Amino acid sequence: MTDTTTDMTETAQGPAEQGPVEEDEGQEAYETSEAAEILTSARLSVDPELRRAIDSLPGTMRRIALYHFGWEHADGTPAAGHAGKAIRPALVLAAVRALGGDQAVAVRAAAAVELTHNFTLLHDDVIDRDTTRRHRPTAWTVFGEPDAILAGDALQALAQRMLAEDPHPGASAAAARLASCVVELCEGQHADCALERRSPDEVTLDECLAMAEAKTGALLGCACAIGALYAGAGHGAVEALDGFGREAGLAFQLIDDLIGIWGDPGHTGKPARADLAARKKSLPVVAALASGTPAAAELAELYGRPSPGPGKDGDLERMAHAVEAAGGRDWALMHAADRMSRAINQLARAVPAPESAGGLLALAEFVTRRTR
Amino acid sequence: MTDTTTDMTETAQGPAEQGPVEEDEGQEAYETSEAAEILTSARLSVDPELRRAIDSLPGTMRRIALYHFGWEHADGTPAAGHAGKAIRPALVLAAVRALGGDQAVAVRAAAAVELTHNFTLLHDDVIDRDTTRRHRPTAWTVFGEPDAILAGDALQALAQRMLAEDPHPGASAAAARLASCVVELCEGQHADCALERRSPDEVTLDECLAMAEAKTGALLGCACAIGALYAGAGHGAVEALDGFGREAGLAFQLIDDLIGIWGDPGHTGKPARADLAARKKSLPVVAALASGTPAAAELAELYGRPSPGPGKDGDLERMAHAVEAAGGRDWALMHAADRMSRAINQLARAVPAPESAGGLLALAEFVTRRTR
Repeated sequence: MTDTTTDMTETAQGPAEQGPVEEDEGQEAYETSEAAEILTSARLSVDPELRRAIDSLPGTMRRIALYHFGWEHADGTPAAGHAGKAIRPALVLAAVRALGGDQAVAVRAAAAVELTHNFTLLHDDVIDRDTTRRHRPTAWTVFGEPDAILAGDALQALAQRMLAEDPHPGASAAAARLASCVVELCEGQHADCALERRSPDEVTLDECLAMAEAKTGALLGCACAIGALYAGAGHGAVEALDGFGREAGLAFQLIDDLIGIWGDPGHTGKPARADLAARKKSLPVVAALASGTPAAAELAELYGRPSPGPGKDGDLERMAHAVEAAGGRDWALMHAADRMSRAINQLARAVPAPESAGGLLALAEFVTRRTR
Repeated sequence: MTDTTTDMTETAQGPAEQGPVEEDEGQEAYETSEAAEILTSARLSVDPELRRAIDSLPGTMRRIALYHFGWEHADGTPAAGHAGKAIRPALVLAAVRALGGDQAVAVRAAAAVELTHNFTLLHDDVIDRDTTRRHRPTAWTVFGEPDAILAGDALQALAQRMLAEDPHPGASAAAARLASCVVELCEGQHADCALERRSPDEVTLDECLAMAEAKTGALLGCACAIGALYAGAGHGAVEALDGFGREAGLAFQLIDDLIGIWGDPGHTGKPARADLAARKKSLPVVAALASGTPAAAELAELYGRPSPGPGKDGDLERMAHAVEAAGGRDWALMHAADRMSRAINQLARAVPAPESAGGLLALAEFVTRRTR
């Protein structure tokens, strides 16, 4: 059987045979390199601003932030830096550009969004007991939970300080939006933890979608909306770009969940079946469980068994087949395509000229298909 | 021997025989009732704004915040509310008034400062494993650490959102100041934890004073400075009021540390010797240890013994006497008086007319002497 998920994520190596987005199949190579260029350019613009902000922190907060961003090793010596793909700052800058604004004035705001994202990563890693982030030990495993919590708090404050000190007329509205987004992210992270504690048959697909929107879609939407504010856009365009980012974020989450079952070893290093081994209630799994099929009953029974530990879980193949037989995989692919189509509709509302929307579209393609 | 610490904290019942502040002895009854009135009035102004802000939070974040502020029981039923003494919002409003501004326009900013204070309490309780706050179980013991961390994050964001949405011309500068203050609070909380892990003889008094300024003085100073910004004050007055709050905050911390040794059972419920039982490196203890006296050596030896648990620690009386014999108590009293005198000097710089400074002075007297 063709592993469409892997195809979707490897369009850099060749065109996808089947993907969640039907548009622009022929343009993929172009979009791929465009996204890579936009991301590299965003990283280059935002990094000096980020470094300057982090360097302004007092001793220990600075050290933890520099470690978390990959700019220092745990012992304080310089490191090459693996600060992630800069997707959120790239969305801010691409949104400014799509609406005819000057990207240069929004670099600080883009850095504030990236700091906010990283504050949530620091805290989520503490909460989820995750031990690896960007191929390195998470900050709390190196510096302890208390200091990781405090460093996260400091990064949230730093992000807000950057916007509060920004004389741009859109800065206050951007700060308010970013703060609202943090509240939504917090509730989303709470919902995620709460869902994972519940029995699979008590969890509805709507709850999981709402959680994914809060936890993943909200900040992507906020990044785009902040870009619109820095371009001086009106209320309608700001909201439409927020909607674009949210919908693309949902599509991204669906694809990420498929990768958590069928794998993408060439790109993320996340092994196939990882989410099944963790008995994660990811979107394809919950969709499968809700299907009322015999495969759903089998999956429920398999998910109820405790995991015997890495490498010993002989049920993983049966689970993956049950998710597929119950329609969870097809649902996720269809739903990701639907979300992407909604994202593009929102984008068209905000940016009527398709040639201006190219950067945002390329980034959305990138996050949902993991082209590179 | 006269317990001057208790006297200092009980001036509501009678004039202090000896206190850290020599000024205004005859005015104490007046100041006491003035401080109480200011605090009550601040609570009445700020509470509706706080409630409105917290009610805007999504489900779980709202529930935890309402519990933390004492407005709901753990089961979600309404509670009488024990949201603390509103010292920080009272300082904001008193500072506005001292500089001739309109208190009404600063109520939202005062609420934002109170939210920020409470975000730090939520996280500090997680970090310090404190189980009681305002005579109730701390939020993390009721809702779990993850949700207490998230609720703290949400309150920080909410505070910044209130300032970002505030059309007052001082709002952006206030937001930037509050964010900088949070960074300082985080480093202060880190320093506190780090100091407590070190051996007493490795800890210097300067380090402890710097920690206390960051952890306690910074937000009191920030509250006053934000009030000055909302009164439209210039840079000099804003900085002077920040200095006033910081110095008064240090004086407060010194008195609080004396209470942690010699007690204030009638007021705070904190039992005498509590900080000694916890082997806390409070300011009078560190001053005593640094004195080079025979009592310092005795204290160091006693502090090195593990605590045998509540009620069984026969060394506590000897420790208290050693702190006193080594000069720790006198140093703390003198230093508190010195800080209070510096605070008053800063206040005079910002507010030349003594009759306008009365509210701020009454609050400073209140926090340092715990009059009520």
